[in-house]
Formats: sequence, C-alpha cells, structure tokens
Amino acid sequence: MKKRLSHYNAAGDVSMVDISAKPSSKRTASAHALVRMSASVIEALPNNPKGDPLQIARIAGISAAKKTADLIPLCHQLPLSHVGIDFRIESRGIEITAIATTTAQTGVEMEALTAALIAALTIYDMTKALDKSIEIGEVYLIEKTGGKSGTYRRKMS
Amino acid sequence: MKKRLSHYNAAGDVSMVDISAKPSSKRTASAHALVRMSASVIEALPNNPKGDPLQIARIAGISAAKKTADLIPLCHQLPLSHVGIDFRIESRGIEITAIATTTAQTGVEMEALTAALIAALTIYDMTKALDKSIEIGEVYLIEKTGGKSGTYRRKMS
Amino acid sequence: MKKRLSHYNAAGDVSMVDISAKPSSKRTASAHALVRMSASVIEALPNNPKGDPLQIARIAGISAAKKTADLIPLCHQLPLSHVGIDFRIESRGIEITAIATTTAQTGVEMEALTAALIAALTIYDMTKALDKSIEIGEVYLIEKTGGKSGTYRRKMS
Amino acid sequence: MKKRLSHYNAAGDVSMVDISAKPSSKRTASAHALVRMSASVIEALPNNPKGDPLQIARIAGISAAKKTADLIPLCHQLPLSHVGIDFRIESRGIEITAIATTTAQTGVEMEALTAALIAALTIYDMTKALDKSIEIGEVYLIEKTGGKSGTYRRKMS
Amino acid sequence: MKKRLSHYNAAGDVSMVDISAKPSSKRTASAHALVRMSASVIEALPNNPKGDPLQIARIAGISAAKKTADLIPLCHQLPLSHVGIDFRIESRGIEITAIATTTAQTGVEMEALTAALIAALTIYDMTKALDKSIEIGEVYLIEKTGGKSGTYRRKMS
Amino acid sequence: MKKRLSHYNAAGDVSMVDISAKPSSKRTASAHALVRMSASVIEALPNNPKGDPLQIARIAGISAAKKTADLIPLCHQLPLSHVGIDFRIESRGIEITAIATTTAQTGVEMEALTAALIAALTIYDMTKALDKSIEIGEVYLIEKTGGKSGTYRRKMS
Repeated sequence: MKKRLSHYNAAGDVSMVDISAKPSSKRTASAHALVRMSASVIEALPNNPKGDPLQIARIAGISAAKKTADLIPLCHQLPLSHVGIDFRIESRGIEITAIATTTAQTGVEMEALTAALIAALTIYDMTKALDKSIEIGEVYLIEKTGGKSGTYRRKMS
Repeated sequence: MKKRLSHYNAAGDVSMVDISAKPSSKRTASAHALVRMSASVIEALPNNPKGDPLQIARIAGISAAKKTADLIPLCHQLPLSHVGIDFRIESRGIEITAIATTTAQTGVEMEALTAALIAALTIYDMTKALDKSIEIGEVYLIEKTGGKSGTYRRKMS
Repeated sequence: MKKRLSHYNAAGDVSMVDISAKPSSKRTASAHALVRMSASVIEALPNNPKGDPLQIARIAGISAAKKTADLIPLCHQLPLSHVGIDFRIESRGIEITAIATTTAQTGVEMEALTAALIAALTIYDMTKALDKSIEIGEVYLIEKTGGKSGTYRRKMS
Repeated sequence: MKKRLSHYNAAGDVSMVDISAKPSSKRTASAHALVRMSASVIEALPNNPKGDPLQIARIAGISAAKKTADLIPLCHQLPLSHVGIDFRIESRGIEITAIATTTAQTGVEMEALTAALIAALTIYDMTKALDKSIEIGEVYLIEKTGGKSGTYRRKMS
Repeated sequence: MKKRLSHYNAAGDVSMVDISAKPSSKRTASAHALVRMSASVIEALPNNPKGDPLQIARIAGISAAKKTADLIPLCHQLPLSHVGIDFRIESRGIEITAIATTTAQTGVEMEALTAALIAALTIYDMTKALDKSIEIGEVYLIEKTGGKSGTYRRKMS
Repeated sequence: MKKRLSHYNAAGDVSMVDISAKPSSKRTASAHALVRMSASVIEALPNNPKGDPLQIARIAGISAAKKTADLIPLCHQLPLSHVGIDFRIESRGIEITAIATTTAQTGVEMEALTAALIAALTIYDMTKALDKSIEIGEVYLIEKTGGKSGTYRRKMS
C-alpha cells in the first residue's frame, strides 16, 4: 500500500488532516537539538553575573511550544499539559532535550521539536556577539508515545 | 577588552539592548538549514499530484520571519523589506537558504535563521508520515551585511 | 419570545457567552466566498511558472481559521479537528468553499467564514498588481451541523 | 510588457517582494464592505440597552488592521499611523468604510481591506443569532494614494 | 512539608507544570482591579457623544483573557467557556471585576487577572490625555472555585 | 478649551489617532508596579535552587511590551529600541520599574506600563502556590520624555 504525504487529502490538495473520528488519548514526544559552540563561548555562559542564557532559552522554548499551530501551517491546536526543556553542557556544545505532553486526538511531535529549536535559536541569539559561527544541528525526534501508531523510539547509533 | 554576552547590560541583568543611538541602515542576512531525508522520501515530494510541500514550507518560513521578535525574547521588532527562501534538492536531503533584508538600527540574522528553521520544521511536518527519523541540521548564518560590524561571511570548509 | 443579539447578557452588557453548561459535540460548518475578477486575471493564474496563488491562499485561510478567536472579540477558542478549503475557477471569478470541524461546546461558523475570507483576501493580494478593481462578495454560511439548534442549510436561489 | 503576479520573483518562486530600494512616503487606502441584513435585524441593533455591536466591530476592525501581515502571508509589516472605520446604516444593510494610513515603502490597501472585512465578520458574529442568512459582499478598494503608482480611485457605477 | 514555588520541578528547573494526570473539571475565578482617577476625569466618561471607553476596555479585557498563555510564560492554554467584565463607577475611580470560567485540568486565576488588568490598562490609555497621574491598584484574586484545592475566597477587610 | 478623551475623533467615534503629521523623535517612558507579598513569600524567592522567578518575570515583561499594540486596541505599533525591567525587593513586596524607548511619532507610555504589569502578573503566577492573597498595586507612569508635550514626571508624595 502506498503511504501519502502527511496533510494531503485523497485529491492531493493540502488540508488540515481531519482528526475528528480519532479518540483523545495521552501522548508524549521528546526532541533533541544541539547548539555547537567553541569551548570559550561555553565557558562564558556561567560567568555571567546575574543572568543565565539557558534560563531565557528555556522560557523561549516553552512559550514557542504553545505557538506551534501558529508557526506550522497544518498543525492542529493542542492543549499542552506539560512542556519541559533540559540542557546538558557538553564539550562540543549545549545539548537540548524538550518534552511535550497532551491528551488529544493527535500527537505532540511538532510541539517538542518547536520547543527544542526555539530554545536553540535563543541560545544562538544570546551568544552571537561572542561567535557568529555557532551552528544548530542534530534536531530530531527522540521518542513519541500514544496514538494509534504507538511508540516510536529513534535508533541511536 | 572583554566581550559581553549579547543582551546583558553592564550590571549583568537581561534587557533588550538599547539601539536608540544607532543609525538606521540597510542590512541583509542569509541563513542555511538542511533537512536530511532518505532518497525515497525525496522522491515522494514531486510526485504529489496537486500540492508542493516546499511551497508550504516557503510560506511558513516567510510568515515566521515576521514573528521573530515574538519568538526570541530579546529580539527587536524589525520591519522586513524582503524575505526569500530557496530550496535545493540534494541527494542527502533538502537544502534551505533564507534571506532577509531590512533598513533598521539592528541586524536581521535572527529573522533569516528563523525563516530557515521554520521552513525546515514544516518540511518535517509534511513528510513525517513517511519517515520519522528525518533530521534537521547544519543551521547556521551564511552571511550578514550592514551595520557597524560590517560584513560577516561564514568560512566554508 | 424576543431573541437577543448574540453575545449580550441579560443586562445588555457585552460578554463572551457562557457555554460551560453545554455538552461537547461534533460540529461542522461550511462557508462561501467569491473573488470576482476579469477573465484576463483568471487566465494569468495557472500560467505562473512555479507558484500557485491558490495554494498560498489555502494555507492563509487554514492558518487564519486557527486565529478566529483572536480576530473576532467574542468568539470562543475552539480546537479545530479539520479545516479544508476548495477553489473552483469560474468565468466570473474564483469560488471558495471552506469547511471547519470541531468537537466542542459551540459552533464553528465563524472559523469557516474566517478561512474563506482570508483565503479570498490573499487571492486579492496576489493578483492586485494585475487588477485593483477585484471585488470579494457572496460571503455567507452554506451549512452548519451539530449543537442544540441542529442543522442549518442556506436556501440557494 | 507583461505584468507579473504580485509576490512572484523573476524565477516564479513566491517571496515577499523586496521593497528596500523604495523611498518611504505617506500612503492611504480606503476599503468598502457591506453586511446585507434584513430590516428586522437592522432595527434590533440600536434597541440593545447597553451595548453597540458596531462599536465592537470597529474595535475588531482596527485591531485586525494591525495584524494584516500576520494574516496575509506575503504582506510587509507596516506601522499604521491611522486606522478609522465608519458605518452607515442603509435599508439593505450596514455599509462599512475603513481607512488606513502609513508612512512606509509600500501601500496599505491590504490593511484597509482587512479592517473592513473583520469589522463585517464581527457584525455577522454579533447578529447571527437573529439571522443566519446574513451575507457580506461588495468588498473592494475605494481609493489608494501615494507610492510610485500614485492615486487609484474605483470607478463607481 | 515545604511548599514549592509554582512552576518549579523537583530539580528546581523551570517547567510548565505537568497537569496530565489531573481530571478535567469546571473552574471559575474572579479578579478585581481599580483605576484610580480624579472626579473630573470620571465625569468626562459618560459625556462622550458616541463612544464609551468602558465598552472598549471590556472588549480589550475579554480579548486579553484569551491570550493569557501567550503572555504568562508558564501558563497552560485553557479553552475559556465564559469571560465577563463589569465596571462600577465609584468616587475614587472605576472598579473592575472580571470573571473567567473553564472546564479544564487547571485553574483560570491568571485569565481573570489578565482580563481585569488589560481592561484597566485600556481605560488608562483612553483617559491619559486628561490626566497622566491615573493609577491602577488593588489588583487581586477575589475568588476561585473548582479543582483539588477547592474554593478560595479573599478575606475582605 | 475643552480636552477630548484620547482616541476619540471630532465626531466622537473611536479611531486610532492619526499621527501621520507628527515628526518622528526619540521618546522614553518609565512605569512602576508593586507586587505586595508577605515576608515569607519574599524569603522563598532567592532560595530556589536553579531558577529565579524575577528573571522569568523580566522576560515576560519585555516580551509583553512588544505586544502592546495587540493588547490595547487603539495603541499604535511602535518599534521599541530598548526595554528594561528592574526589580527591588522591599519589605512590603517587589517593586518593578520598566523603561521603554522608541524613535517614533507617538509615545511609549503604554509599552512601559504593559511591561511592568505583565512582569507583576508573572511574579504572581510564580508565587501563587505559596500565597493567593498577593496583590498588585501602585501601577503608574513615573516619567515620559519626548514628543510635543515634552517631559512629564509624576509628583511623588
């Protein structure tokens, strides 16, 4: 059987997929992003006397998750029951993990990815004066649970 | 002389940087993102009878560029005079280049990056039914022009 | 018995109508709009090499449906389970039909109308360089289903 | 010489038109919309003890004008220096005139049209309990001034 | 047992509190605000020939309640089933009472407070030409009902 | 000569004031708000291991300042060149000072007030689990500079 691209109906026209016949259930998703930066920029982060760029990035990511349906044209509006963002400072940069949870008729993959990406972009904004070559990468879905297709877990190499 | 993190004032408190003394001038920025996907997903893109995922991604990216100051907490609101997004279908995935232009007191790097990233995220959303392991990477600033710091061009390896 | 204007409470003050005692149920609505344009403008639409104004209008209409409660002051926020927009190119212009679906305590008439109208306005924006006298008309509710008042179907002359 | 559809660049790809080389100048636009309603609905409007649906529609239209660039994908963000909305109660319904003014590099036609249309839609929302067959029509640009193309005035029949 | 600040998880990191295990139930909240103004400004309000600043403030407050989750970073998105705003003109100024209702997994205190505050701010905006020393005060939660913690009622002195 | 309420035109109808004839100039405004809270809640603020409610409130206030024209119906959209928020922890609660700067045709009083108020509301949201009786008060304009009416400075008692 041939799979169709998401968001295309039988006639091939774009539409917001009809989820009205799907049952509401608990769904979670987690996403990853990496902000690659040099050791000297990473060292500058904690030395900042009163502010913490990661805290601002966390707020930005959580706020953005709530705007996912406004950013991605064919996403449904979902009432998020939880959004959390964690940072791990590694030698190659800052690793971001975002998690989103809902009880709804469709999944929260896009919300988790949006949270991770906007958090990454905010870190870029806060550090770009130090190093313009900072790069965001490794943006992917780590895991999703719930819904008819069940659990997906990314194969880590 | 020590550089300070962007958006931190002398006392270390977070604030939106004061740009009121800076002259208004023309500024451009271009940004890159890559949506890595398998050959089979890439092949499915043009076969779609009436719709084009890249066109939707382009609209999403342009719309998102106009919302940058709403997404990145310390960004200034800029009147964009131009936003354009180009796609190049390569064997490893879809390469996105976004360009943004303004005449303002500060640069448009964040607008170009936001356009590229939300376009990438929209492609992910349109294709995730085919392949959940799609990954976004190589998100970086290609070039910026204008302003006191002048032109920056990323060193390509 | 006298009917009261929607959104006015017993004392005559404006308020967002209290729907908390109403049961949640499936509701649909469809709306119509017409973008009147000359034959020469209609002919220019499909000749455009890489882009399709109707596709952009469709995305704009779907996105706008999700913002209805932000545009119409006394509308409730509804989680849309489906939004679709169809175009029919006729000799007098482009006919737009928008459909919206929800499972909620109130109807989606305003969402369907907003989708149709913003799609129409986007077509205007894409074609105004060719003809400034383009006119939008015949904006009305075609049908609604669900809720206590049940099905309404417009009498077509 | 062949005219191109607005918002398409030389290659035919959609983009937000580059206005960075255009001088900033004062521009105005006015737009018209008609909410057709039966005499009995029109009569119900002023009898409402404490509220005035037209006042709410006016606020909705002014607010919407400020969101035009968020609704119409390829519109530029414009700083509006004035928005005004007038209503005239006629036997066939409520006639809406919206005016918008800016000093910018591009025109405010879409802002005036958006103001008129959302005001019309709000009147529909306020009166739909009385009559679901209310129709919005005759949405067009009355006049625009300023910019390279100068003044346009609709030919009234 | 020690209470924790709202929105901080066990590790002390900020996150949007996980409410996915909480049952959905009806919840209401009401909030108060006072716009202190001189007798002469209060007298000017009803004399205005065709408009009513309080009506505009009411629309602004209702609209703002729907945007609470976009304004307060860690607020959940709630589908409001009712928002109402009342004004009482007193000798010391205008007293505002806002009420919000939802059926959801968390309370609507922030929505009621946002409605009251933005209504107050709008009155300030409408009257600041007459008196710049107008002051907003006495912003507090009057009552909340529903949820595990049940009813709270402010002790009035 | 009689002063008119802000935002009312000669005929008494509400409109967004026409500022197109006013010159653009630098303008600043600062606003004050107080979050009254008990000593025990104030003491809990700095003890929080990894997060700082004031930092989140600062981000919320800065973000809200950029949305002022979306919240207050008749406000003009202003490009803010600076927004800053300061907190002072006093025995009676947290004192907030917000400052906003623009180069524009109208003043930034509403932006400074919005920043202060949403920062206050965010602090309420972060601490309401500890004490529901927290109250926001003393919201007023401290000073404004620029524009035809020049400098205003609140008389402090």
